[in-house]
Formats: sequence, structure tokens, C-alpha cells
Amino acid sequence: MGLDSGDTAWILAATALVMLMTPGVGLFYGGMVRRKNVISMISLSFVAFALVSIQWVILGYSLSFGSDIAGFVGGLDYLGLKGVGMDCGDLTVPHLSFMVFQLVFAAITLAILTSAVAERVKLSSFIVLGLLWTTLVYDPLAHWVWGGGWAAEIGALDFAGGTVVHISSGFSALALALVIGRRIGFGEYDMEPHNIPMTLLGAALLWFGWFGFNAGSALAADGLAANAFVVTNTAAAAGALAWLFASWVSGKPSSLGMVSGAVAGLVAITPAAGFVDPMSSIVIGAVAGVICYRAMLFRIRKGLDESLDAWAVHGIGGLWGAIATGIFANEAIGGYSGLIYGNVEQFIAQILGAGAAVTYAFAVTFILAKIVDAAIGLRVSEEEEYVGLDISQHGETAYA
Amino acid sequence: MGLDSGDTAWILAATALVMLMTPGVGLFYGGMVRRKNVISMISLSFVAFALVSIQWVILGYSLSFGSDIAGFVGGLDYLGLKGVGMDCGDLTVPHLSFMVFQLVFAAITLAILTSAVAERVKLSSFIVLGLLWTTLVYDPLAHWVWGGGWAAEIGALDFAGGTVVHISSGFSALALALVIGRRIGFGEYDMEPHNIPMTLLGAALLWFGWFGFNAGSALAADGLAANAFVVTNTAAAAGALAWLFASWVSGKPSSLGMVSGAVAGLVAITPAAGFVDPMSSIVIGAVAGVICYRAMLFRIRKGLDESLDAWAVHGIGGLWGAIATGIFANEAIGGYSGLIYGNVEQFIAQILGAGAAVTYAFAVTFILAKIVDAAIGLRVSEEEEYVGLDISQHGETAYA
Amino acid sequence: MGLDSGDTAWILAATALVMLMTPGVGLFYGGMVRRKNVISMISLSFVAFALVSIQWVILGYSLSFGSDIAGFVGGLDYLGLKGVGMDCGDLTVPHLSFMVFQLVFAAITLAILTSAVAERVKLSSFIVLGLLWTTLVYDPLAHWVWGGGWAAEIGALDFAGGTVVHISSGFSALALALVIGRRIGFGEYDMEPHNIPMTLLGAALLWFGWFGFNAGSALAADGLAANAFVVTNTAAAAGALAWLFASWVSGKPSSLGMVSGAVAGLVAITPAAGFVDPMSSIVIGAVAGVICYRAMLFRIRKGLDESLDAWAVHGIGGLWGAIATGIFANEAIGGYSGLIYGNVEQFIAQILGAGAAVTYAFAVTFILAKIVDAAIGLRVSEEEEYVGLDISQHGETAYA
Repeated sequence: MGLDSGDTAWILAATALVMLMTPGVGLFYGGMVRRKNVISMISLSFVAFALVSIQWVILGYSLSFGSDIAGFVGGLDYLGLKGVGMDCGDLTVPHLSFMVFQLVFAAITLAILTSAVAERVKLSSFIVLGLLWTTLVYDPLAHWVWGGGWAAEIGALDFAGGTVVHISSGFSALALALVIGRRIGFGEYDMEPHNIPMTLLGAALLWFGWFGFNAGSALAADGLAANAFVVTNTAAAAGALAWLFASWVSGKPSSLGMVSGAVAGLVAITPAAGFVDPMSSIVIGAVAGVICYRAMLFRIRKGLDESLDAWAVHGIGGLWGAIATGIFANEAIGGYSGLIYGNVEQFIAQILGAGAAVTYAFAVTFILAKIVDAAIGLRVSEEEEYVGLDISQHGETAYA
Repeated sequence: MGLDSGDTAWILAATALVMLMTPGVGLFYGGMVRRKNVISMISLSFVAFALVSIQWVILGYSLSFGSDIAGFVGGLDYLGLKGVGMDCGDLTVPHLSFMVFQLVFAAITLAILTSAVAERVKLSSFIVLGLLWTTLVYDPLAHWVWGGGWAAEIGALDFAGGTVVHISSGFSALALALVIGRRIGFGEYDMEPHNIPMTLLGAALLWFGWFGFNAGSALAADGLAANAFVVTNTAAAAGALAWLFASWVSGKPSSLGMVSGAVAGLVAITPAAGFVDPMSSIVIGAVAGVICYRAMLFRIRKGLDESLDAWAVHGIGGLWGAIATGIFANEAIGGYSGLIYGNVEQFIAQILGAGAAVTYAFAVTFILAKIVDAAIGLRVSEEEEYVGLDISQHGETAYA
Repeated sequence: MGLDSGDTAWILAATALVMLMTPGVGLFYGGMVRRKNVISMISLSFVAFALVSIQWVILGYSLSFGSDIAGFVGGLDYLGLKGVGMDCGDLTVPHLSFMVFQLVFAAITLAILTSAVAERVKLSSFIVLGLLWTTLVYDPLAHWVWGGGWAAEIGALDFAGGTVVHISSGFSALALALVIGRRIGFGEYDMEPHNIPMTLLGAALLWFGWFGFNAGSALAADGLAANAFVVTNTAAAAGALAWLFASWVSGKPSSLGMVSGAVAGLVAITPAAGFVDPMSSIVIGAVAGVICYRAMLFRIRKGLDESLDAWAVHGIGGLWGAIATGIFANEAIGGYSGLIYGNVEQFIAQILGAGAAVTYAFAVTFILAKIVDAAIGLRVSEEEEYVGLDISQHGETAYA
């Protein structure tokens, strides 16, 4: 098809919006850590973005979107962006704009994962692990679902990355947290967020950018994009209110809960955004708020130091979103029906797709983390952890 | 008409821009309050946004844009977004995108209102009041002006919400401040802003988002949108400089004054953005900067604790903007002429529309606030106010 | 040509993105100064934006894009935006949207320049100097390159402002720093950045906005815009990693270095974004990261207090970018060939264009600064400098 300037305008704007989400993750996480680690936390997101920006144009895009190899990974056709140009191919937007839209998804996924290693990871080891992870976990998963791999083949739906981005980063975070181990003093003394307004700002940027994430995934400025935009917002709002009220029952409603609920709603609607209608999105978002809140409580009860709850919010939220897509998909929106319209097959496809992603992400990340840990050590020394990563890894103090 | 992808791309981007303004209001206000209330202040904006996001899709959009009932309110045709779909109807953008563009306007209006209750409102009461207010004040006002109500009928012009958003929130804030009463210690000791850079950041996001607010209101990516974009920027700049210089005469030019002036200019150009030319916008913005500065001084002199000057900036700025539209409207821009082109009728229509909005917003808000106050109490206890709302309402401390 | 709604949607969104960069510069710089000067630093960017917003619509646009006078400056055809309307002329976007897209470039250029006077400039003198500078330095330079002036005539390429924005602000900053002199205590005691997360946030907004800067400069939502978007991102990432690793060799990799490298990469790709391919952009960005890092070390060694490194990052980065455009220009992208394709002429044109800009910006700024200094004094008193500009210039304290 030929280029459509409106579609292109929207995909370019959407890509910029999604790009901003990665520093958004950095601020969201950065506010939640202790003062001595905030530069580290924000920098990990920047580093993730920069690393993937280079990896993706050289190799990652090809592994994800190159011609299919056994349903598992893409071939090397697009190595170094060979053949990825200003023309549109089958799309109405330039191939390069599709490529960079996908790039910003790959980048934020690695940034979400930094939750698991907060306040204790060696910068050098994160760089090595990050490059391995994006190449061996993210790229194949993106291929399965969006690059013509097996998950697409069996009909598993993932409009904007519930599986590829959120299940993958969330369950990888769980594996990574198990390998790197808890922070010194975890469970013994308080590790209060040092700057909650920073986290609220990060949440605002995430919500803002998510319109690009989900509505941009229509790859066009059309009715489907508008639907995705609306359900994204409604699910976020419902998630925020649900977590707020759920936590209010047994205490005061924290602002961190409110924005965590918003992110939970955003995560859950991500795979569904092109398939469900606005009223369903209220349910999807509200359930996400409650489920992810409970997952967080469970995580804390188990003494797991997956420090900033990527697993509870992105992992569990993404899992719920994949399932919810199989429940609420409305043919009138995106052409597929879910369980409430009597379509059991879609529901099963969703569970298979999500289940495989959970297993693959968890297992491969666990192995990669073990290897990197054995080879160069994932973690800073005890002394460096006490001093804080800002000074020990960057030689800087956040606030003079 | 059929869908235009360029118009749709712009309305989607504009909606995202306007969405960001609500946390922008939170940061703008959050920096101005004391350290013990910053989480509360930012959270009120988030809560406003989440509440209206749900209320609007279920009820509010229908009350505003449903088929006209007696010129006063819309019918229930669109209840639960019934009939609001991916198609375009009479527009060149999907009905859903028009709906969500209107949603973000409704949301920010409630957020602006939080100025009046800063540092002393009970979160639970704000939720109740907010839902009532958006339903009984905002929705009818939006219908009057944009939904085919009586104000549209008499020809009152409001391009992007000078009346619907700014007069309504500003004069409602005045009523609400009178009902809730002053903060303990107001006028006796200093209540210095705790984080001015946060307010400057909020102002930057407001200015940024306002391009979506005003230029998005063209509902198309065309010359009118371009004109609205330009006059928005020029009025903001003129407002900032005018307040800066006006306050410099009798003291040092504060940064808070500068950004308040920018917001004043933005407010004033809002109703006019599709009707006036760039040179007029300099006058409109500059006058807004001076008038709103004087309104703030008046408010302080009167001992009124409308704490963060929603009345002075949005109320008075919006009133001036409505009148200015009747003065400067240039037929070559939007098809209407104002007083300087000899059209007295437009000027009168503007005054009638604005006057009715002032009266309605003030009166209904006053009554609603009285009712909520009597029923559940608007205000926290004296002790909670001393401790601060962050701890008393949210159980959190902003900065560890 | 007629209006294209997709192109217009993109230029409007891009203009908003670039607008956000100016407060982004304010935050980027604001985090690097001492606590007593942060309001001043951010306010200088706001003031720059407001001043240029008015100057540009009255005079600046005409001096830059009015009919050519001797290759040096534009005529007064567009004075007060006369004849600049909602129609498109030769473009596919409204003339007004082209005008305001250019406005935000002019504004940020003055904001970058505030690096040179950080923590010691009188607000009143900055206003006077800023108006003179934008009129006598920026406007002619924009005309040379984009308004049909001599640099366009000899074929010097500058896609999005490497020369007009970055060389001009960077070398002007050098001149201005020499005239205003060092901060009291410079080189004697530490002047640590007071809030590094603020700088990281500023950098995030810059990177985000730069997509509008470079991809918007295509003036269309097309393949060229997509290419510009991609190379912008890749160069930024390469610059960030290059500075990170270059500084890691001799110490710890600071977050400030990382984001300075990103900005260096963004600066260097700016003139090249519409002419080079993605693989070249990695080289351009990486070299920029290393060169600008070395320029900063050189600046420090020389005891030059060009305080926040506009010269090292924008000046040297812009110079490298101009030359790199002459080296890597690929005919398949933008129709021009560089040195690696055997075209020596382009390389020479780049050097001539850049060299003239360096000379003109440095010389005229030096003279203007000397005149303003002699007339009204550029600098606050010693006492005011000790107290800090927030209190002495604005009567405010950033953090209560």
C-alpha cells in the first residue's frame, strides 16, 4: 500500500510518546528507592534505552521481524537494517517508522526489568545481562507474537504487548530477583521511597505515553486507534480507583497504590486494546487493580525482594490482560470474539500464548542471570550496597 | 463525512497532550503547597482524572452531548457510550476520539477546582463532591456551549473552553473556598511554596498540553488549528511577560508570577483561539497577565483563602477571555466579528454566556458544597490539618 | 500545493514537542547549578521562550524568512505576520504552522545560551541581551541557511539546525562567558550540581522533543521524517554510550556524562538527519560523545567558566555534525552525497557554512555582550551572587 501521511503522523507521534515512557519508568522507580540509589535507578532506564536502541537496529529488529525460522525467531534479513527504508511495503507508514515504533517497545521492556535488581546491581553486569536478555528473551518473544511466529500461528492475540512486553518483563523480573537475591536488610528495616512526587511524575508520563503504546499499535490513525485510546484511559482509571479502594479497606489509600493501580490497568488493557469495547475495559482495569494489589501483598508475604513490583504489576497484570482478551474480545471492535461471546478457542489460545511466554521468560532469564552472575557477578559488594549505587557506580550524589 | 487520517492523528495526539495537563495541574499546585501536603495535592488531580474518566464514559458524555433537553442538558442517548463508536458521523474523526477529547477537558476542569480545598480537604469528601460537581455543573455547562444548548443558540462563542472549563472551575473554586473556609493559620503565618521547580515543571506541562487543548479544538489538522496554535503560544508569552513586569514595578519579579501570567494568558486565549489573529492575541494575553495579577492581589487583600488562585487566574482570566473574544473576533479567522469590527451583538452574547456560567457555577457549587459538608464534612480535623494530608489521608511522607 | 492534513498533524505535534525542549533545557541546566540559583536558571529558559515568542511574530520571522536582502537577512515583508496566514503557499502545511515551528527553534537557541551566564547574570540585562542576540545573531543565521541566504546558495546543508541552532548558541556561549567572566570561586571550590534527577528529567524531555526537532524538519509525515526520527534516536543512544564508556576509562561513568553524551549525539545528528542513513548515525553519535567529552575536559583545563557546557556540547557537537553531514550524506536518503561517496564539494560547503557561523556568532555576540555590559552591566553584584540569584533576582527560595 502507499504511504498515508495521517497514519505516518500518528505513528511518529506515538513513537515519541512511547520513548518518553522509558525515562518515565526510571522516574517511577527512582522515586521508590532510597536517596542513595536514585541516580542508579534512573540511569538503568537510560542505559536500557540506549543499549536496545543500538542492538535493535543492528540485530534485534531482524531477529524479531525477519523471515520466520521454525516459528521461533526471525532470520537475519534485516541485519543492520538492510532493506528497511523509507518505503512502506505492505503498510501505510514507512518501514523505518514501523521499525522504530517497535524499537521503543523493546527498550522499555528492558527498563521495566530493572525493578528486580534495584539498589544492588553492578552497572557493568546490567549492560551485559541486558544485551543478552533483549537478544535471547525479548526478540524471540516479539517474533512469536508479532513477527509471524508460532503464537501468531495459533491465533493468540496481543494487540500492544501484554505478552511481549509485560508478561516477559514481569516474569523475567521474578527470575532475576531470585538469582540476585534480596537487598541487605530487606524485611528487617524500612526501605521507604525517598521521593513520592517523582514516582507520581513517572506515573503521569507512563499514562501519557501509553496512549502511543496502545493506540499507536493500530498502525493507523483510525477508528481502531480511537477505540484503543479510549479503553486505555478507562482501564487506567478503573485500575487506579480499584487499587485505591481495595487498599482503603484495610488502611489509608496511598498515592503509590493509586498509581500502581493505574499502571496495572494500563498493563492489563495492553493486549486487549484493539479487541474490547470501553465498558469491558472498565472491568478489565478494575480487576487488574485488585489482582495486582493482591499479588504485591503475596510477594511481600513471601519475603520476595522483586523490589519495585514489576512481577506483581506487569507480570500478573499482563497475564490477566492476556486472559481478559480471551474473555472480552468483541468482534465488532477488532474482529475476534472471546469467551463471553461463546468462543472458547480464543480463550485457550490466549492461555497457551501467555503460558508459554511465562515459562520461556522465566526459565531463560533465570539461566542467563545465573551465567552472568557466575561469570562477572551481578551484584555490587556489600560495602558498595551500603554506600549506595550512586556513589559506588556513578561517583555522584543526587542532591547536593 | 468520512474519516480523515490526518485530522484523526492530530485529535489523538491532542488528546494525549491535554491528558498530561491534569498531572500538570497536580505538579503546578503541588509545588505551591507545604511539604506535608504535596502528595495530597498531586493525588487530588489524579483522582479527579480517574473519577471523571469513568463518569464521562458512563454518564457525562451523554449529559453533555446527548440530544438537547430544553437547551439545558443532554439526554441519555449516549449512556454507557451507546452508539459512540469507531465511525465518524458528521466529523472527520472517529466518534470515540471526539468523545475522549472531550473527556480530558472534563477531567482537568475538576482538577483545577482542587485549588480551593488545598491542604484541608478530606479525600473521601472530595470524591463525592467531585462526582456531583462534574455531573451537575460541568456537564450542563458543556452542553450549553458545545452540546447544542442555549448558549450556542444565542451565539456565544467559546472555542476551547474559556467558559466551560475556566470560568466554571474558577468561580466554582471561589464558592468552594467560601464553604470550606480558610486553612488554619492563613494570614497569620507564611505558607511558602515548598518546591518552586515542581511548579515550574507543572507550568511547562500545562503550556505544552495547551497546544492540544486549543489547536485540538479545531477538530482538524488545518489552518484554523495552526492559527489556534500560534495565538495560544503568543498569548501565553505575553501573559508571562506582562505579569512579570507588572509585579516587577513593586518588587522582584517572581518565577511564580511569570508562570501564573503564562497560565492567565493561556486561559484568556482559550475561548478566542479559533476567532482572533496573532496580533490580537498579544493584547489578550498581556491584559490577562495584568488583570489576573490584580485579581490575585485583591483576593489576598480580602483575606480569601482560595488557596492556589484558580479564581484569579482561571475565573477572571476566563471571563476576560470570553469578553475579549467578543472584542477581537476577526471574521477572516473563524467567521465571526467582534466589537472592534463594529459587532456589538457578539460582544453582548459573550457577556450573557459568561455571566450565566459565572452565576450557575458559583451558585450550584456553593449549594453542593454546603450539602456535602453537612452530610459528611468537607474538611479534615484540625489535628489532621496540622499533621498534613499526606500522612492523615494517604499514610505517606513525600520525601524520606 | 494544497494542505495535507497528515503533514499538518505532524508539524503541529512536532512544534509542541520542540516547545517542551525549552523548559527541558531549563531543567537540564537547573539541576546542574547550586540550590540558590535553580529558579533563576529555569526562569531564564522561560523568559527566553516568552521573549522570542513575541519577537518572532513581530520581527524575527520576517528577518529570517522575508525576501532575501543581499544573502544576509530577510526583508520586512512579514512584519507583524503580515501575509502569514492559514493558507499553505508552497507548502503542504499552513504558513502559520511553518512560522510557529520555526519560532520554537529560535526560542530554544536563546535558552541554550543561558549556560554561559549561569548563576551570575542580571535578569534585566539578560532580557536586553536576549532580544538583541536573537535579532542580530539568530535571525540572520536562520536566513543564511533556511531563508534563502548565502549559505543555502553555496549548498551548505543543515537539515534541522546544527549550524543555526547549535553552532550559533554554542559559540555565542563561549563569547558570552568570556565577557561576563567566571563565577566567584570558580576553580577554587566545588560547584556540585544540586539536583541530578532534575537534569536527567531535563535530558529525557530533550530527547523526547528532539524527535519533533529533527523529524519535524521534514515538514511532512513521510519516509524522510521516519529516517530523521530513526537516526536521531540512534545517534543519541550512541552518544550516550560513547561518553559513558569514554569517561569510564578514567573513572566512574557519571549519569551526567551519559546524558551529556546523548545531547551531544542529538546535536551532531541534527544537521544530518535528513541526509544520512541509520548506520552512519551510530558513527556520528558515537564520535560526538567522545569529541564533546574531550571538549569539556579541555574547557575545564583552560579554566573557562562556560558553565554548563553549551560550547562543548552544542558548539563542538554542532561543528562535528556539520562536517559529518559533509562526510556521510547518502544520496539515497536526501539527495546529496558526502565525502565517503567521493563528493568533496559538499564537504567544503559544510566547512564554509559552519566556519562562517562560528565566526559570526562568536564575534557579534562578543560585541553585543560588551555593549550591554558597558551600558547596564551583565552581572549581578558580588553580594547578590553570594546570596544567589533566586533571592536576589526573583525574591524566591526554591525549596522551603
